[in-house]
Amino acid sequence: MTNKPTLFALPGSTEEVEEGQAFSPKFDAEGLITCVVVDARTGEALMVAHMNAAALAKTIETGDAWFYSRSRAKLWRKGETSGHVQRVKEMRVDCDQDALLLKVEQEGPGACHTGRRSCFYRTVTLRQPAGQSVSLSFVDADRAFDPGKVYGKPTK
Amino acid sequence: MTNKPTLFALPGSTEEVEEGQAFSPKFDAEGLITCVVVDARTGEALMVAHMNAAALAKTIETGDAWFYSRSRAKLWRKGETSGHVQRVKEMRVDCDQDALLLKVEQEGPGACHTGRRSCFYRTVTLRQPAGQSVSLSFVDADRAFDPGKVYGKPTK
Repeated sequence: MTNKPTLFALPGSTEEVEEGQAFSPKFDAEGLITCVVVDARTGEALMVAHMNAAALAKTIETGDAWFYSRSRAKLWRKGETSGHVQRVKEMRVDCDQDALLLKVEQEGPGACHTGRRSCFYRTVTLRQPAGQSVSLSFVDADRAFDPGKVYGKPTK
Repeated sequence: MTNKPTLFALPGSTEEVEEGQAFSPKFDAEGLITCVVVDARTGEALMVAHMNAAALAKTIETGDAWFYSRSRAKLWRKGETSGHVQRVKEMRVDCDQDALLLKVEQEGPGACHTGRRSCFYRTVTLRQPAGQSVSLSFVDADRAFDPGKVYGKPTK
């Protein structure tokens, strides 16, 4: 498997990358591109993940979201264990083609492996006085499913 | 300037990172963390950028969005040239603390240096037959401002 399938154009000039119609995704030094996944209906940010060229090709071919897991070093169809697959309704690329936006229909109750609908269930305290460590607050953090049951391992 | 100000906790166990209230952002090998910026009012995805520890500290202290520009290798207050600053209304961190979500009030007409409101102004064609190169379509791509005037250089 090559890292640069003919499916994708090689990046051209800045003008071509920003104003052209050729898809030339810019993979980083590890061969990955950042993907922001949002709910297609509500726009809610669900998660951030990464794709390598193979995951991107599979997503484009099938319409289901595939990613590359850095921690497990493997290609991964979102929901392959949990059943919480993501049907990609629309994919967008940003101006310099180094980030993707996936608008998905999230099957099942949630996208996060901790059991929440979204991975973004904590806020960061802003305008923290200098010298104090920054704390988090839980918001929208109710569990939509029991990760222990869904993934077949204890939550803690 | 150290890369790990005392402002941020060092990552602990998975349980602490995912279920704790200590902010322990996970910077990558380059010392950066991915930030997704969305409109606080509409939820629209505006851009993806990166912060180093200094940019993150400045954002938390001031409430304005600061990033680290990889191409220019410098700290950068969003809008410092264009005037299109981003007031951070809420910041969230994801489950494993390696991505940030910024809900911002975008000042001025747009976030993208190409003149659009959002950097995501092109869709990627899905379910492309194998072997054909993937194309982009322009959507929501009308210019909200003239980048040549705002940045003081020609658009092309």
